[in-house]
Amino acid sequence: MIGKEIDTLIHLLSKLPGIGPRSARRLALQLLKQKDHLILPLSEALKQAAETVKTCEICCNLDTTSPCGICQDAARDDSTICIVEQIGDLWALERTRVYRGRYHVLGGTLSALDNIGPEDLAIPGLVKRAKDDGVKEIIIALNATVDGQTTAHYLIDRLQYCNVKVTRLAHGVPVGGALDYLDDGTLITALQARSAFA
Amino acid sequence: MIGKEIDTLIHLLSKLPGIGPRSARRLALQLLKQKDHLILPLSEALKQAAETVKTCEICCNLDTTSPCGICQDAARDDSTICIVEQIGDLWALERTRVYRGRYHVLGGTLSALDNIGPEDLAIPGLVKRAKDDGVKEIIIALNATVDGQTTAHYLIDRLQYCNVKVTRLAHGVPVGGALDYLDDGTLITALQARSAFA
Repeated sequence: MIGKEIDTLIHLLSKLPGIGPRSARRLALQLLKQKDHLILPLSEALKQAAETVKTCEICCNLDTTSPCGICQDAARDDSTICIVEQIGDLWALERTRVYRGRYHVLGGTLSALDNIGPEDLAIPGLVKRAKDDGVKEIIIALNATVDGQTTAHYLIDRLQYCNVKVTRLAHGVPVGGALDYLDDGTLITALQARSAFA
Repeated sequence: MIGKEIDTLIHLLSKLPGIGPRSARRLALQLLKQKDHLILPLSEALKQAAETVKTCEICCNLDTTSPCGICQDAARDDSTICIVEQIGDLWALERTRVYRGRYHVLGGTLSALDNIGPEDLAIPGLVKRAKDDGVKEIIIALNATVDGQTTAHYLIDRLQYCNVKVTRLAHGVPVGGALDYLDDGTLITALQARSAFA
């Protein structure tokens, strides 16, 4: 006895990641209670985003322009490219406001299980960019997962004749992390990569 | 360095119940990846829902018509009205396909803390409906919370001169529930309301 329009809305909401049928119903009710404040602006924002957002032809970031704002920004350092798996990782790094170079979004990791090979990721574009004379350093900022590290090793192979320095993020104890709760792998890495007090 | 359109989308998504800034970013990325399959249909569904869905003038349910589908359905039993707090509760009861009477959605519970009095809920409309000669029974199906039960007692007072039988949902052990995990209140109620094996 739920109206067709509400039913369609619940069905579409339940397709979002992490949202099941129960959450979708709760969301739909909450949205319908706040018609002018939320549902219409959200509808418009989704439409706007779908119409204007595109993938950057250089780094595969999402932005309203292509090349994206980061690739166009003349104030950023052309000599460094940071490789990330997903756009969410790029956003995470940007929030730190520490890195001022360029990015390259792979769009995933190599995965034999999921049948994702090098040709499914943005690797050819990366190799092309790495061969540019201006590029001095490539930072591999992939996740510290098995797939992420496999992909990192593959990238090191592909980049070895490109005349760039290839670096990776430090592994170790997270800031604020308690040793007691850390997994053995992290502790071993942190021990092996220990450094002298400055 | 996130585009304005994406930023607006994330901001609006983070206003949804149970969705914080981190989930909103993940949702936005997932939506942007599925432009044609998800983002445009969702935008359209939200707009449709905002434009067509209204509150039923009789029972305060949400539907595309007013009176709503349930109030208009000639096959349903006019002599019984089931009082629920929220539309979500009405949906839950409808999913059981057992109740075939009418509903009345209060829109909340009385709450001294939140300053919600009888005039903020759909109580006048309910009393008017209860005075109709055709109505024989009113089922109070409010949540078994302190506010829900306070409201139930208030409703019993208001309805006592309306010449209707006022009933409430049974309290007891949930079907499939293990005694060991039940709170004392539920167990006491279940003991006191024990019934003979049929």
